[in-house]
Amino acid sequence: MEKLSNNSSKESSYAARLEKIYNWMAEENITLLMLEDTETRRDLNIRWLTGHPGDALLFLYRDSTSSIGGRVILAAWDVNLAKLYAFKSSPASDADAVIVSYNDFDRKPSKAIAMIAQKLKIPAGSRIEIPSVTPYPVFLNYVGDLTDYDIICRENGAAAEMRKLRAVKDEDEIAILRKAAAITNEIINSLEKNVIAGTIKTEADAALFIETEARRQGCDGTSFGTIAAGPQRSYAIHAFPSWTHAPFGGQGLSILDFGVNYGGYCTDVTLTFARDLDVKQEKLVNLVEKAAKLAVSMAHNGTRTKDIAAAVDTLFSKSKKKMPHGLGHGIGLQEHEYPVIRNSSDNDWVLSPGMIFTVEPGLYDPLLGGCRLENDILITGNSSSQPEHEILTNARIIRL
Amino acid sequence: MEKLSNNSSKESSYAARLEKIYNWMAEENITLLMLEDTETRRDLNIRWLTGHPGDALLFLYRDSTSSIGGRVILAAWDVNLAKLYAFKSSPASDADAVIVSYNDFDRKPSKAIAMIAQKLKIPAGSRIEIPSVTPYPVFLNYVGDLTDYDIICRENGAAAEMRKLRAVKDEDEIAILRKAAAITNEIINSLEKNVIAGTIKTEADAALFIETEARRQGCDGTSFGTIAAGPQRSYAIHAFPSWTHAPFGGQGLSILDFGVNYGGYCTDVTLTFARDLDVKQEKLVNLVEKAAKLAVSMAHNGTRTKDIAAAVDTLFSKSKKKMPHGLGHGIGLQEHEYPVIRNSSDNDWVLSPGMIFTVEPGLYDPLLGGCRLENDILITGNSSSQPEHEILTNARIIRL
Repeated sequence: MEKLSNNSSKESSYAARLEKIYNWMAEENITLLMLEDTETRRDLNIRWLTGHPGDALLFLYRDSTSSIGGRVILAAWDVNLAKLYAFKSSPASDADAVIVSYNDFDRKPSKAIAMIAQKLKIPAGSRIEIPSVTPYPVFLNYVGDLTDYDIICRENGAAAEMRKLRAVKDEDEIAILRKAAAITNEIINSLEKNVIAGTIKTEADAALFIETEARRQGCDGTSFGTIAAGPQRSYAIHAFPSWTHAPFGGQGLSILDFGVNYGGYCTDVTLTFARDLDVKQEKLVNLVEKAAKLAVSMAHNGTRTKDIAAAVDTLFSKSKKKMPHGLGHGIGLQEHEYPVIRNSSDNDWVLSPGMIFTVEPGLYDPLLGGCRLENDILITGNSSSQPEHEILTNARIIRL
Repeated sequence: MEKLSNNSSKESSYAARLEKIYNWMAEENITLLMLEDTETRRDLNIRWLTGHPGDALLFLYRDSTSSIGGRVILAAWDVNLAKLYAFKSSPASDADAVIVSYNDFDRKPSKAIAMIAQKLKIPAGSRIEIPSVTPYPVFLNYVGDLTDYDIICRENGAAAEMRKLRAVKDEDEIAILRKAAAITNEIINSLEKNVIAGTIKTEADAALFIETEARRQGCDGTSFGTIAAGPQRSYAIHAFPSWTHAPFGGQGLSILDFGVNYGGYCTDVTLTFARDLDVKQEKLVNLVEKAAKLAVSMAHNGTRTKDIAAAVDTLFSKSKKKMPHGLGHGIGLQEHEYPVIRNSSDNDWVLSPGMIFTVEPGLYDPLLGGCRLENDILITGNSSSQPEHEILTNARIIRL
């Protein structure tokens, strides 16, 4: 896998990510780590570590003779696809990274582990870690099939480590998310124009406009089903159905929560359109705007995310309001990642450079309607000479 | 819950489904059954059993004094949404079905079980079943938190029973899927016209056309990301990305695999567009058409699905061809449900009236391209006087 570490920036990102996992495996005395991405249990860590888009088992074997600390075996459902996407130009014949067919193991993960462990001459008693989401009945099968090894399945294992690592984006990921944000911003500007011009009249119009524009601008589409809730439905946190043929942008408050998927990475923003508000509605909107400004102003390297969420809760409670959801979340290959931005005792996330996350204060009232404002924030510099964050998206309250 | 059993057809469907589960619980001596639908572990059985679209825990408590054999507690993240959708007009105050807030249990399923078991005075030692997909580390938490009860988590439990039950659609489901199929068929006809007229020129055009038409015709959208693969990419089983801006419908074979989501239910069809084929390509297409006819002709009540898949495999092998995927699958609330239509020794599914499934023979060649033909079939009558199946969709090979 020399190519992984020496070639293009893209390839070295994968190598750097793998190297971190091998280091962690050494600390944890894990000899072999298996990841599984199948229809019933999706795991985007395989894409994050290799570039392969999915439907595969990934085996990471710790090997101190390898330049990055280990070897990779990617058992793909579609080998041709894996050869196109995994490690880009790194050949499958490379000693440190091989691509094999999942069918070679009769599509049985426990059989794959047994065959690979035998091939690699992994000593009996070694620790082999399987996904933390392995169902209990399936775990029993692994243990029954692999009696020679110590099968590890735990909450604070490899999956938790990858959640932490993925919370901090590397340069390649930041570049992709900047591009995704730029497209999102163009869509926001076009939405404003079209709602004002009256060419977007219904929730369905807004949702389809976003889907069409995202695709036209080179995205794979939206990152989740757009939530378009006109004045009659905006009081719900997440309206169901996510859009209807009801009017959008009329008198009162209309919420539009969407994101694009660009190069596998997801943005997530929420706009509120406000028209002819009464005094109470105006107060609600101003409070949400104030909360958003407060939250963003606190987004610094070293800040505990629970403190940001607590500050917003306090602001709302002074006006006798309560937000019925968390303040935000990381974004990346999934629309909901880490860090968590929530005012709860078990949240110990601290912001650091490279984290990209949403802040999305919102208030909802059955009579007044709902208002939410969500933008995507990147934590940048860690010194006083650098700005400490960057607001990547330009979602806003649009007063009609 | 009298309303469930006595009112509209919609409501009695839910009651009938619940009754089957309570009967099964009695056989299995399960006192309380918990289902979980959350972002990390989706379970559409909650929608199937109650109409509530999701983000909830569902508790089914066996109680022989209830007219349908038990009581329902729906712990919803969004209680207002649950009141709108669950059991339709059945009030939450009804003694046999209550809606409560998931927040009442601090969003902890094990706490919810403990509180509900106490409220219902469930005797110590009772069998309480939790989802079969519960991860092993989470299972350990349940067992630690609920020492008074026998916590059951198994592969052949409630989830397997519901897979079997859901494989046979009831009248309400058949009516919805007929409507979904009718919309799918209109879209197929429009696709043909637009590809011939040249208004659909690229894979992206085809995918966006389907998304737009589905929404225009009252669907929630497509049931999965449309796969549009022009002549250069159709050799892949499932092309990635699922569509690009590459040409579609030019010389050779173009595959279009899509479905609509109507009222929560999914169709799934695949067309192949063929233009100016050479002799080998023509042979490939004819073979796939022949396989589709053969498979449909065998779709009768009482037929083992593995026999249908084996017949297609045999047909292909006579021409020295091999299909790299299964022959088909059930459709319903998800695009992939049961029965399985696959030639494998562990497949013991047998067709029965009410089953709706795809048959999708396909052949793929790196030089010739790929061809797949997929339609949705309903098993109808079970007597010789009735037709034994109905082809709900009109997917076809379209020769340009």
